[in-house]
Amino acid sequence: MPQKLLKNIDLSSDVRKLTPEQLPQLAKEIREFIIEVVAAKEGHLGASLGVVELTIALHYLFDTPNDLLVWDVGHQAYGHKILTGRKDVFHTNRQLGGISGFPKRSESEYDTFGVGHSSTAISAVLGMAIASKLQGIEKHHIAIIGDASIASGMAFEALNHGGDTNANILVILNDNAIGIDPSVGALKEYLTKIKSPLLKVEQHNIFEALNFDYSGPIDGHNFEELLRELERLKKVSGPKFLHVITTKGKGLRQAEQDQVTYHAPGKFDKISGEVLPKEESEYTKFQDVFGKTIVELAQQNEKIVGITPAMLTGSSLKLMMQEFPERTFDVGIAEQHAVTLAAGMSTQGLIPFCNIYSTFLQRAYDQVIHDVALQNLPVIFCLDRAGLVGEDGATHHGVFDLAYLSCIPNLIVFAPRNEIELRNSMFTAQKGLKQPIAIRYPRGKGKLRQWQFPFESIPIGKGICLQEGTQLAVLSVGTIADNVSEAMNQLENKEVIAHYDFRFIKPLDTQLLETIFKKFDTIITIEEGTIKGGFGSAVLAYASEVNYKGHIKLLGIPDAFIHHGTIPQLQELCKIDATSITKTIQGLL
Amino acid sequence: MPQKLLKNIDLSSDVRKLTPEQLPQLAKEIREFIIEVVAAKEGHLGASLGVVELTIALHYLFDTPNDLLVWDVGHQAYGHKILTGRKDVFHTNRQLGGISGFPKRSESEYDTFGVGHSSTAISAVLGMAIASKLQGIEKHHIAIIGDASIASGMAFEALNHGGDTNANILVILNDNAIGIDPSVGALKEYLTKIKSPLLKVEQHNIFEALNFDYSGPIDGHNFEELLRELERLKKVSGPKFLHVITTKGKGLRQAEQDQVTYHAPGKFDKISGEVLPKEESEYTKFQDVFGKTIVELAQQNEKIVGITPAMLTGSSLKLMMQEFPERTFDVGIAEQHAVTLAAGMSTQGLIPFCNIYSTFLQRAYDQVIHDVALQNLPVIFCLDRAGLVGEDGATHHGVFDLAYLSCIPNLIVFAPRNEIELRNSMFTAQKGLKQPIAIRYPRGKGKLRQWQFPFESIPIGKGICLQEGTQLAVLSVGTIADNVSEAMNQLENKEVIAHYDFRFIKPLDTQLLETIFKKFDTIITIEEGTIKGGFGSAVLAYASEVNYKGHIKLLGIPDAFIHHGTIPQLQELCKIDATSITKTIQGLL
Repeated sequence: MPQKLLKNIDLSSDVRKLTPEQLPQLAKEIREFIIEVVAAKEGHLGASLGVVELTIALHYLFDTPNDLLVWDVGHQAYGHKILTGRKDVFHTNRQLGGISGFPKRSESEYDTFGVGHSSTAISAVLGMAIASKLQGIEKHHIAIIGDASIASGMAFEALNHGGDTNANILVILNDNAIGIDPSVGALKEYLTKIKSPLLKVEQHNIFEALNFDYSGPIDGHNFEELLRELERLKKVSGPKFLHVITTKGKGLRQAEQDQVTYHAPGKFDKISGEVLPKEESEYTKFQDVFGKTIVELAQQNEKIVGITPAMLTGSSLKLMMQEFPERTFDVGIAEQHAVTLAAGMSTQGLIPFCNIYSTFLQRAYDQVIHDVALQNLPVIFCLDRAGLVGEDGATHHGVFDLAYLSCIPNLIVFAPRNEIELRNSMFTAQKGLKQPIAIRYPRGKGKLRQWQFPFESIPIGKGICLQEGTQLAVLSVGTIADNVSEAMNQLENKEVIAHYDFRFIKPLDTQLLETIFKKFDTIITIEEGTIKGGFGSAVLAYASEVNYKGHIKLLGIPDAFIHHGTIPQLQELCKIDATSITKTIQGLL
Repeated sequence: MPQKLLKNIDLSSDVRKLTPEQLPQLAKEIREFIIEVVAAKEGHLGASLGVVELTIALHYLFDTPNDLLVWDVGHQAYGHKILTGRKDVFHTNRQLGGISGFPKRSESEYDTFGVGHSSTAISAVLGMAIASKLQGIEKHHIAIIGDASIASGMAFEALNHGGDTNANILVILNDNAIGIDPSVGALKEYLTKIKSPLLKVEQHNIFEALNFDYSGPIDGHNFEELLRELERLKKVSGPKFLHVITTKGKGLRQAEQDQVTYHAPGKFDKISGEVLPKEESEYTKFQDVFGKTIVELAQQNEKIVGITPAMLTGSSLKLMMQEFPERTFDVGIAEQHAVTLAAGMSTQGLIPFCNIYSTFLQRAYDQVIHDVALQNLPVIFCLDRAGLVGEDGATHHGVFDLAYLSCIPNLIVFAPRNEIELRNSMFTAQKGLKQPIAIRYPRGKGKLRQWQFPFESIPIGKGICLQEGTQLAVLSVGTIADNVSEAMNQLENKEVIAHYDFRFIKPLDTQLLETIFKKFDTIITIEEGTIKGGFGSAVLAYASEVNYKGHIKLLGIPDAFIHHGTIPQLQELCKIDATSITKTIQGLL
């Protein structure tokens, strides 16, 4: 598409050289640019399309990067990146060595705060505003936050504090009534109400109750309204709140109509807007293994309920929602509440499956310890997207869970090697288990053509031998076993290598370990989680307890944040790909 | 004091045999009983005194334990315990083997949910109510939550979800305008406003906006009002919200007047109400070492700010609040916000000291990883009450931090051995450190008469040798070194035992470790934190890396929840008291 204006824009200062009348044309070009790149390269589409006018208006009226913008979650920030020095590298978005899909401080001074998990923006901006005030610096501090994100507890905490200060912050609510899935909760209903013209006169609203100077709702696709209101707010001191209504996916018909699919649609036709057919696959996503299995179990066991904090589609819990809407709960972006809700349900005899992405369970760590494990309530955590997640990068890898969960008493920690084990562990967990369990599995497809076999119980704390050997034993947990198998196939003398799948990080199969200690002087442990505090660490602790004198080599995620790239690329970086494992084995033989 | 009514009351069913006219007398007797026991045995006083009438009214009108009560935080629950089978053991409150200071499921069927950390009650009760509904059970589900606790994000998440259901829950706001310190935040101001008679007519309030059937405010010390309103609410279906005004410390003049001191006053005279003079001590609480040091540093470095989530007095950050109110922030019970606020401040060049109890940092785990460590922002975490805390028990011990922090890249983890090291580590941290640091120290007094010496820098990642030896090396982190020293003094051949203080759990002093590995075949590590994933675990990992063949014995908190008792009693249970250490050393020599 020919660019009339965008071609001359490198930084936001270039935007400020335009006339107000030129801004709609710029918006059009940015939309085309985003669509063109994301159609081919994939990424988050809908949220960024929805805030194109808002993005332009902010950079037009405010003196970025001196004035500070924080984009909550960061799904929304493609337009921002394009207008702040990254137009020419935008095609490298989310690729190894390319720009991040989220704002990132190390990438640009315009990215004032790294965002990836939701609802952090108001706290961050308030901190910045207080810092400016204490240092006598005059500038603007602006958080742009979606209606799904503002319903998360952390955002409320920040509003509650912010309203009690005279800090110069502007919170812009980007209200499009959807997160990844449609927003839920009482606040969402409330926002819907105050959008209605009948109630617009109602002065006294929640945000005003919290001492914010509330204005809006205004049309977030109307430059005139946006510029007028932002210009006015520039002169208002103290905490301000602007309610902006936008349409997620704005400017691409299909994205406006099917907002869930077009949140991150994968490759699509940039002209027609149609999502390109995914490659046919005989394999199933672990997410769908979870979703189909919970439906099957819920049919047999009426005590089962399913809970997700705003990841109904991503987790495939929507399959249960379709079958059992009364027993399926999308609580919004509220991981803390999700976990304690599950604990409460468990006290009354229900069997809650609480599905949370590994990286997001970090938000509910205290609730796992204090409300579930300490009370030894048999809540079943299904930790989706555990291990490396690929293109979403450092904010989204689920690599800390094995460490942060292993230190919690009473909790069983299990990592299925494949679809069948995920399925059977879910079966085992709901069949009268008397303590909590965390089942962690990766993003994406498994490697089995068939996995829907009759359910079988998995004995708690028991590992298995996948291959006997004589010289060296590899001990793995989870799907990384595939890389071990592949590595062994690359070896000429593979028969000397034993491979054990421990499955349970906790309780550790110490009986199996004793057998291995007796037989082998060299052991490799491997896990797709931080080396510190995980499975290998537990093996070392037991080895020291029984005074094992052999050599144990630990493989896993090193003590560093891993950025974005494809999963195979990142596994290679961490030396847990098949080739690296082969080399490690060869070095130890 | 003679008991007319209480002597005949064992369970709540006995309360229900009384006439309404007898309830004020019962309230009087319960107050006297609480005061008498807590005066001698110590414990949480003010909160429970404030809800005596409410407690009686709830048990009088509702069919406990069939109807479910959840007392948020549980500070409030002494009256509840006394009326539900624990009057005769109430004198064992918080003692080893005695009843817990908080509701605890394993203690009584009337304790429907364990509470110790705040703001969990609404989530728990909602889970229970949904469970009842799904199972076709009719009962009442009631959360009693304070105004400080309801301002925490998690409570908002639960209200937001609850208001979107037709679950039969009653949320009772126990509004006494104070948590441990006076409540803060915009919501608190709002609650103050709606209490004023002028605004009482205002129908449209925050809780109604969230779809709760709001009623109140009513006088929480007036049985007539309480019984009438609770009776009415029993017949209202769906989510209900009752706003009750109480006075913390009600019935003891001093406790009403000085609510901060009388939250947990220690021993006091049960007749006069005067707090008994504490034993004179030459020693200083670590909290005051923190408080005095941050004031001293803030005088020299104007970039320093202090942040606490609602523990201004407990942490002694109040000392800074007195000197530098503009640079000191009590954000309320909002650990998540506190951490990201600190991160935001840090981006603008401030040096935030974020003081959070070790156990409460679990509430902000994701923010430590995602907002601070990933961005490598030099926030200084001061983790108060790390290790065993004694009488507060399982919900409050700070024993997981070494494990859950050690797996986070970029973060330095330091445990001072004494007051001087706490002081010097704070000095070191604010002097241009380029990465975040967590400094964890225990509850209570240190052992040095003098500690206010000129500041000295501590080299990052460097341990020290406290005593040379020849046969066995003890490696400790933190104040548990005192027990090691004491243990060595119990040994006849102490000169063969070396003692090293590693100070840094991360980065580990591998150079010192190499020296130790060369010299010793037997090593003991000791820490006041979970054995899993902590300091000893890091030593094992390095030992395996360099193929050390000696024996390493790990001491610390075992893989079990530790309940309440005095700190020495609990250390003995965990075998990290001096005598146990002595035995371990003797066994290994």
